[in-house]
Amino acid sequence: MVIEHALLPIIPGHEDAFEIAFAKAMPIISSMKGFQNLTLSRCIERPGTYMLIVQWEQLSDHIEGFRNSTQYLQWRQLLHHFYNPFPIVEHFEQINQV
Amino acid sequence: MVIEHALLPIIPGHEDAFEIAFAKAMPIISSMKGFQNLTLSRCIERPGTYMLIVQWEQLSDHIEGFRNSTQYLQWRQLLHHFYNPFPIVEHFEQINQV
Repeated sequence: MVIEHALLPIIPGHEDAFEIAFAKAMPIISSMKGFQNLTLSRCIERPGTYMLIVQWEQLSDHIEGFRNSTQYLQWRQLLHHFYNPFPIVEHFEQINQV
Repeated sequence: MVIEHALLPIIPGHEDAFEIAFAKAMPIISSMKGFQNLTLSRCIERPGTYMLIVQWEQLSDHIEGFRNSTQYLQWRQLLHHFYNPFPIVEHFEQINQV
């Protein structure tokens, strides 16, 4: 399992529209091969920043499978115009939990 | 439920020692009032960076209960010397999931 992580900075005043667009975009990503689950959370200290966490079976499911898909074009069209600056997307491997 | 989030930059070469110290520190935080669960993950693109996610019942369980506790002094003593720079710790509220 690989964790995709991004902090999404939304253009001020567009938070509500982003949340609506994100709800529309969720079925696009959740139907992809290797998708396991997703959470979207909003920052308390900086309410214009959201945290996206997606769990994938393998790194390649995200960076090859999803990003090279036609579904990614729809995802991008729905969401990318809300971001400024464009977020850094990184991947993590869980090493401990309690 | 409130999500505590931090990206932890570990002083280069100290990653193994940090992981051992973190395993020792986990029972300190998991015994606190309001603690729900915790994950520690390691970044694939930047292996010196770890992501800490802690779920608390309420924001005050972390920023008042834990940070003002004697247990926090032990936590700090075990872990804080590994960080450079000291991480930004923020809190999130989950708004969507699939």
